[in-house]
Amino acid sequence: MYDVAIVGYGPAGITAAIYAARRRLKTLLVGELPGGEVLNSGVIENWPGVETTDGITLAQEMVKHLQQHRQQVEIVQSKVLKISKESEQFVLDYGVNKTSQAKAIIYAAGRHPRKLSVPGENEYTNLGVSYCATCDAPLFNDKTVAVVGGGNTGTEAVIALQSIAKKIYLLHIGKQLPADPVLLENITSNKKTEVIVGAKTVRVIGDKVVQALEYEDLASGAVKSIPVDGVFVTIGAIPNTEPVKGLVKLDKWGAIVADRYGRTNQAGFFAAGDVTDTRDAQIIVAAGHGCSAALSVSDYLARNQ
Amino acid sequence: MYDVAIVGYGPAGITAAIYAARRRLKTLLVGELPGGEVLNSGVIENWPGVETTDGITLAQEMVKHLQQHRQQVEIVQSKVLKISKESEQFVLDYGVNKTSQAKAIIYAAGRHPRKLSVPGENEYTNLGVSYCATCDAPLFNDKTVAVVGGGNTGTEAVIALQSIAKKIYLLHIGKQLPADPVLLENITSNKKTEVIVGAKTVRVIGDKVVQALEYEDLASGAVKSIPVDGVFVTIGAIPNTEPVKGLVKLDKWGAIVADRYGRTNQAGFFAAGDVTDTRDAQIIVAAGHGCSAALSVSDYLARNQ
Repeated sequence: MYDVAIVGYGPAGITAAIYAARRRLKTLLVGELPGGEVLNSGVIENWPGVETTDGITLAQEMVKHLQQHRQQVEIVQSKVLKISKESEQFVLDYGVNKTSQAKAIIYAAGRHPRKLSVPGENEYTNLGVSYCATCDAPLFNDKTVAVVGGGNTGTEAVIALQSIAKKIYLLHIGKQLPADPVLLENITSNKKTEVIVGAKTVRVIGDKVVQALEYEDLASGAVKSIPVDGVFVTIGAIPNTEPVKGLVKLDKWGAIVADRYGRTNQAGFFAAGDVTDTRDAQIIVAAGHGCSAALSVSDYLARNQ
Repeated sequence: MYDVAIVGYGPAGITAAIYAARRRLKTLLVGELPGGEVLNSGVIENWPGVETTDGITLAQEMVKHLQQHRQQVEIVQSKVLKISKESEQFVLDYGVNKTSQAKAIIYAAGRHPRKLSVPGENEYTNLGVSYCATCDAPLFNDKTVAVVGGGNTGTEAVIALQSIAKKIYLLHIGKQLPADPVLLENITSNKKTEVIVGAKTVRVIGDKVVQALEYEDLASGAVKSIPVDGVFVTIGAIPNTEPVKGLVKLDKWGAIVADRYGRTNQAGFFAAGDVTDTRDAQIIVAAGHGCSAALSVSDYLARNQ
């Protein structure tokens, strides 16, 4: 029986685990990828105190920090299938015959990328279609690529690709790119990048690998095709809340309704980071939220045992 | 006229300024000490990704990061005397004939240490009495010191002093030390440190410099004296909200009532970090809160101009 089981291996989960360890709680951390979605972050220039780093480096530093607390925190690298509550304790199901019990939960499983849901997308995933510019941009050296989605993630992907690819198209369904001006200035001043707004992606075309992207020009209704070697999909993210449906209150987007200390409607169940109904899916916010959730668990255990 | 004036030079203010700069807001940051209360933090082992650092180093890194944005952020090192609102804009008064106007405020002025309010305390401040172990511990090499207050700050002060002083008394008014177990284990295993609980400090005695500390043993009522060369006072902190009294809603402790995005009851006035009514006065929480407050300002300006 653990004092607390933390689900999620990103900044929120890792920070929660560090704080739980410092409170000498018997802690289990279950997560799939060490670092979580930070691994997809590319260049990071808004982690306070670090002028420039990248997602993989920051993730590695956090994981290394957590490993200092190995005596207090058991780490299981796995997907969690289901969390349930049985007579005042929580049961984590993470595979065939693998369960763990905990007095409290910190659920920090993050969000996952939203798909375009167009023909060819699944067929050519990892054959040119990618959801992670940081992971896959180096594969497109001197190639032509499309980035679909003009928010911060998409714009950051373009910036990463500008030093690698030959030509980048940035397609956005709306009329204006919603990314930060500081990012947009970077891409509009780069001749490699062509921005196409009012463009709805309708198909990924390929032959063994990606060869073109088809989109509808929403202003004219015309369907156009651009030859590309790769397609980066950056159109948002979905909270990873499947394992806790029915256990805890979710909002209409499927995010966990939590307050600033990570408290939910379920006693003993706390949430942190991008899986919650936060407006701000930022690494520094998730880390702070992870800290607060751990302090909430500490309070909860002090009052309930 | 600035888009936003940020008051406070700690992790909340600096993070807010970095985010404001990335949103290309015309930003003013006014604060007294670069790094704020972090400078008093001593050893820091809970900033995610950094196994061990200290307050001065972390503060320097954050300030250096901020200085990358000098083009966007003007920094004025000063105390702020008063903030008022005049016809939909804010006026900062920070000295004789020095005022600035801004469309929005992020108030992140932190908390300051609470005083013992006993005879001798003010008289011997900086003559043995200190509120900053990180700053002043090196002055007490091979000396005897008392630390008053057994919370995390006090316990961290003791840990810092253990490698410098000859003997450390840790006095706490309650019967149990409220500090994190991980910290307490460190001091109870060190022979230099003697913990005295149920001790109410009543006087600082000196002759040019501190010579002794007098306390009442609450169990017996007896007043006892211990010879010390220094007294570190670590009994909590008071929100620095004097300049905004009447402008924004405060709680009974004088902290600004703010939500998780830093929004207050005053339109255009946002708050972040330890100056708010947060339960969690942690660096990582303050930094996350600073980020959210900057994103709130960005939203506010987009909707109000």
